[in-house]
Amino acid sequence: MTEAIRKNFASDNIAPVCPEVMHALNRVNHGSAAAYGQDEETAALEEQFRAAFEHDAWVFPVTTGTAANSLALSALVPPYGAVLCDQSAHITTDEGGAPEFFTHGAKLIGIPSNDGRMNPEDILAAIHLNREGGIQSSPLRALSVTQATEWGTVYTLPHLRAVTHVAREHGLAVHLDGARLGNAVAHLGCSLADITWRSGVDVLCFGGTKNGAMGAEAVVFFRKDLAEDFIRRIKRGGHLWSKQRYVSAQLRALLTNDLWLKHATQANAMAQRLVHGFQRHAGSNLPFETHGNEVFVVLPEPVVAGLEQAGYHFYRWATPPGVKGVLIRLVTSYATEAEDVDGLLAAL
Amino acid sequence: MTEAIRKNFASDNIAPVCPEVMHALNRVNHGSAAAYGQDEETAALEEQFRAAFEHDAWVFPVTTGTAANSLALSALVPPYGAVLCDQSAHITTDEGGAPEFFTHGAKLIGIPSNDGRMNPEDILAAIHLNREGGIQSSPLRALSVTQATEWGTVYTLPHLRAVTHVAREHGLAVHLDGARLGNAVAHLGCSLADITWRSGVDVLCFGGTKNGAMGAEAVVFFRKDLAEDFIRRIKRGGHLWSKQRYVSAQLRALLTNDLWLKHATQANAMAQRLVHGFQRHAGSNLPFETHGNEVFVVLPEPVVAGLEQAGYHFYRWATPPGVKGVLIRLVTSYATEAEDVDGLLAAL
Amino acid sequence: MTEAIRKNFASDNIAPVCPEVMHALNRVNHGSAAAYGQDEETAALEEQFRAAFEHDAWVFPVTTGTAANSLALSALVPPYGAVLCDQSAHITTDEGGAPEFFTHGAKLIGIPSNDGRMNPEDILAAIHLNREGGIQSSPLRALSVTQATEWGTVYTLPHLRAVTHVAREHGLAVHLDGARLGNAVAHLGCSLADITWRSGVDVLCFGGTKNGAMGAEAVVFFRKDLAEDFIRRIKRGGHLWSKQRYVSAQLRALLTNDLWLKHATQANAMAQRLVHGFQRHAGSNLPFETHGNEVFVVLPEPVVAGLEQAGYHFYRWATPPGVKGVLIRLVTSYATEAEDVDGLLAAL
Amino acid sequence: MTEAIRKNFASDNIAPVCPEVMHALNRVNHGSAAAYGQDEETAALEEQFRAAFEHDAWVFPVTTGTAANSLALSALVPPYGAVLCDQSAHITTDEGGAPEFFTHGAKLIGIPSNDGRMNPEDILAAIHLNREGGIQSSPLRALSVTQATEWGTVYTLPHLRAVTHVAREHGLAVHLDGARLGNAVAHLGCSLADITWRSGVDVLCFGGTKNGAMGAEAVVFFRKDLAEDFIRRIKRGGHLWSKQRYVSAQLRALLTNDLWLKHATQANAMAQRLVHGFQRHAGSNLPFETHGNEVFVVLPEPVVAGLEQAGYHFYRWATPPGVKGVLIRLVTSYATEAEDVDGLLAAL
Repeated sequence: MTEAIRKNFASDNIAPVCPEVMHALNRVNHGSAAAYGQDEETAALEEQFRAAFEHDAWVFPVTTGTAANSLALSALVPPYGAVLCDQSAHITTDEGGAPEFFTHGAKLIGIPSNDGRMNPEDILAAIHLNREGGIQSSPLRALSVTQATEWGTVYTLPHLRAVTHVAREHGLAVHLDGARLGNAVAHLGCSLADITWRSGVDVLCFGGTKNGAMGAEAVVFFRKDLAEDFIRRIKRGGHLWSKQRYVSAQLRALLTNDLWLKHATQANAMAQRLVHGFQRHAGSNLPFETHGNEVFVVLPEPVVAGLEQAGYHFYRWATPPGVKGVLIRLVTSYATEAEDVDGLLAAL
Repeated sequence: MTEAIRKNFASDNIAPVCPEVMHALNRVNHGSAAAYGQDEETAALEEQFRAAFEHDAWVFPVTTGTAANSLALSALVPPYGAVLCDQSAHITTDEGGAPEFFTHGAKLIGIPSNDGRMNPEDILAAIHLNREGGIQSSPLRALSVTQATEWGTVYTLPHLRAVTHVAREHGLAVHLDGARLGNAVAHLGCSLADITWRSGVDVLCFGGTKNGAMGAEAVVFFRKDLAEDFIRRIKRGGHLWSKQRYVSAQLRALLTNDLWLKHATQANAMAQRLVHGFQRHAGSNLPFETHGNEVFVVLPEPVVAGLEQAGYHFYRWATPPGVKGVLIRLVTSYATEAEDVDGLLAAL
Repeated sequence: MTEAIRKNFASDNIAPVCPEVMHALNRVNHGSAAAYGQDEETAALEEQFRAAFEHDAWVFPVTTGTAANSLALSALVPPYGAVLCDQSAHITTDEGGAPEFFTHGAKLIGIPSNDGRMNPEDILAAIHLNREGGIQSSPLRALSVTQATEWGTVYTLPHLRAVTHVAREHGLAVHLDGARLGNAVAHLGCSLADITWRSGVDVLCFGGTKNGAMGAEAVVFFRKDLAEDFIRRIKRGGHLWSKQRYVSAQLRALLTNDLWLKHATQANAMAQRLVHGFQRHAGSNLPFETHGNEVFVVLPEPVVAGLEQAGYHFYRWATPPGVKGVLIRLVTSYATEAEDVDGLLAAL
Repeated sequence: MTEAIRKNFASDNIAPVCPEVMHALNRVNHGSAAAYGQDEETAALEEQFRAAFEHDAWVFPVTTGTAANSLALSALVPPYGAVLCDQSAHITTDEGGAPEFFTHGAKLIGIPSNDGRMNPEDILAAIHLNREGGIQSSPLRALSVTQATEWGTVYTLPHLRAVTHVAREHGLAVHLDGARLGNAVAHLGCSLADITWRSGVDVLCFGGTKNGAMGAEAVVFFRKDLAEDFIRRIKRGGHLWSKQRYVSAQLRALLTNDLWLKHATQANAMAQRLVHGFQRHAGSNLPFETHGNEVFVVLPEPVVAGLEQAGYHFYRWATPPGVKGVLIRLVTSYATEAEDVDGLLAAL
């Protein structure tokens, strides 16, 4: 790795593509293949997902997480409907309005939480409030859960199930934003089945790009009825690749030999290494538990400025009122190595 | 090349990725890079386009032609507006409603032509008819021209200029669908500047995917005002890659040493080789001139069926009423070789 | 009637409100009423429609025909779908893009006909062509029939049933644009049931505004499943009146004692009086049969100009190529009287 | 007035139409009139608004407040943009998603306030936060202010100007939701010019329906550039009445002799009468100042239930946590009389 990446903790999407994915691209790069997802690689991908998830699944590869989430939501809510999510959810804060675009203007209703993990009680209260709004409200039709969350935490399986249970009891479909699902599974030590359909998830967006791929995410439906006509939404969104074998091949490489899990495990370990370092550092304060590959830490302004001057890249976050210092976010990836972390800790 | 591709004339998008593009993907695959198009590769791409087009240009790489065309149109017309195009245009027949999606419901108004090339007189008449409609019509705000056309023909430069002149005189912006622009340039022997801004084009969609790339198209604005906020439309459509270096690198490979032109020239030559073969074949009838890489030919049903049984892939097209035989479309690509064509002609 | 209206044949919407409707507005204008359609007048309206149509019906009053048609279509097709209609249909030529707006960009596919009445064979061919388009097409999900048509003709009941039969056999829902349904019924002498659900219609837009109301149209569903959530679409379109009693009252006045039919009968009679006059006039040519209240006639330019100079109002229509003279449209309404028609005929 | 209305404090839209408006409907109900707003009544309306507002104005009558607000916002923000408003604003809580529909999915960003009146500092902070979001946010392009607010308070002119000043300095257009503008003017004792363009308002929605009309609101632009093509948006939304004289006439009746102000003054006075009554009542608690015609009061549950049993209509509102009793909303209108209020107070 070059120095540039060794000092770059801005995001997990600044990393290059892993060798296995590059190899897969080369593997499929010969001869002709039927266009628009009618190729053999895409067919094999669906089988591979079904095996990995131990369940029937209807799998649609696309190339960005924004597209995956927004397309998935458009299959769950009508244009006049609403989606409930944590107020920190990526879909409501960071997609540039894509969910509203793909759903044709459905509302995203964010509810507050301490660390990105919604409480079942708050979900229930939001559903009741929405119902009381009657014809003047936008009816809730889906719940979107982010796992791991935007604050680097992970729902336990019981917590996840409590949350989806409330939603399903009230007729809401359940979407799981799994841009960092690997990090959640690595943390929980559960199976892919446990964290998805066994926990009440109807549709999953399985992230590959942040975990070693070039541009590959899978929308995975566990209910066939929701997947009907989904390919038309993909085409209409300009997300149906003519040469789709090259998207499917990336995802297949990640699924093969649980490469996705190996990558996520490495990223999580590097995040823990950061956490342990900060915990030994007097001036630092970690406002959230670190379960996945995102570390949020409050440091004194001079320390933060010093790291920046030393060439480190990361984001300054909006520091909550009353907190002394600067809240920053550090993200590790499959490509982060122990010496990268140690270098940063030494630079503190 | 394997036999599969040698017998596949279904489309130019069934071909694999060319070695130069694969090389470019490997070239940029090291270290970290700023996400969402802030990388150096994307910056270099814009410079390279400006040099190639001899004009200021604002360049936005996306990964599908559907996205490129639909996003470009959304920058030209308001949701209550309309786009004029040839009735055979891909945007109105084959995008699964994507232009309507991205423009939020603007109308596509198709006008008839003999071979995919609109006449200036018909454009003028359509504009007048639209004006007369007043408040009950959807006002025309853009003209979309396909070059090369869906019927494999190419507008001459004077024809192209006559067409765009009418549009601009009446306040319509001009969009060029260049999914096969290379084939048009190879046919005309002109410069990229000649066929675009010197011919009255405001925004070009420059196709890479059909010409050797994996998934790479460039939306090229020649007017800065139209490009304002365009990046937001891309993001909102889920088309902003976090790892955009991998899209930009593909397009750079095609621009370098005019690889796009070399590819298109080969495809065109193979199309001509097909044409010459058909012209020597008694039962065949070519309804259109072949300028680019698409050959339309009417053959007797038994001949068509024979080719299919021999393993050849191509599309049966809607045969016009009154025509005896079956209209088929054969498409060549950069990967088509002389012996592939000769094999098909021999199989006739 | 003043002279202004006596010489105004521009449309049936230039007429004032009939006394019965004004009376109904006054009738309901006392005391409080629950808002947003929860009032007693609206409840009574639904009952009155059910009786008039001899069928269960879910009735939603709105105030414009554009809204009625566009909202109805949005309940029948998904945003990525398509609606089949005659190429002269008001929804595709004269709604300023409203159907595209309310359906979120569904396509309107117009098919040609001689006089605004589609043939079953052409519908079947269009359905087949659409199916062949596969993923690149916008799938047809509804057929929209205009009765009476834009050319003043009326489908016979067997013709209407043949048309809806093809649609339903292929899974398309059937919408009837009845902006001038009264004129069609008056011509056919059938019942409201005959011309709607007994003829395969799923949803009707029943026009009141052109037939004596101030601003009142009813969207009438004959299938409960299609009506679900429809009130939310109305609210979201800004078409749910808080004081809805005043819309419902208008429609109730028209239904009471078949006032709608009396009005339409008068309008039709006046149209026939015009036709008979033109038939006696040497230089005139009637390109279509006149079944309802719209008369299309080709007259020599000096005659048309003379009528205009004499203060008559009507529209010059796009005269078909090869036709000598000027095609004009004359529309009669409930308020047109015999002496108005005779005055125009004398002015010829 | 009947007993029903005397006991109905649910909203100001449950009232009947005032005699002057009914008279105006009859006044214009003769002869023909050009359709779609080309009539003389609509032309006169624009002149009347310009005189009343002492400024050039481009005026578009529509029939619901939902339509007026949503259409106005669609002229201010692109589909990928955002609107800032108070979190209690009607546009974000009670329009059934209409603003999202008409803007094609723009975001509404609500900010908290104590009583429905935003602080300039909070607006500034929201603008900064939005800017920092960069490409992943939806850019703020408009500020929407509700006057009088949803909590029955009214911005003072200096407060209003401070709020619009921040917006305009940062390039946001300013929309005023004036569904109850009359009540605000009656409270402030200012001119229509003072409360709109002299206070930095670009477009006003002037409410008539809640103030005596049947269904009539005016979208009033003080900037011509924003009004361009607005009529196309109205048509496309199905809100362009063919018989528009009947909408314009309602608004003209309200403007004539300042009937709107007389009505609002009466409603406000009745609200004050309620307030004074509650202030004398031991168990009641008024959480907000009452400036307009909406009174919010916390009463013990048995008292509220008693009023309901006595036949009174009003809404139970979401009672804030920690508050003992039940928060209810009582709305007065032009039709509320002193004895109605006294009756309710006596029933306490």
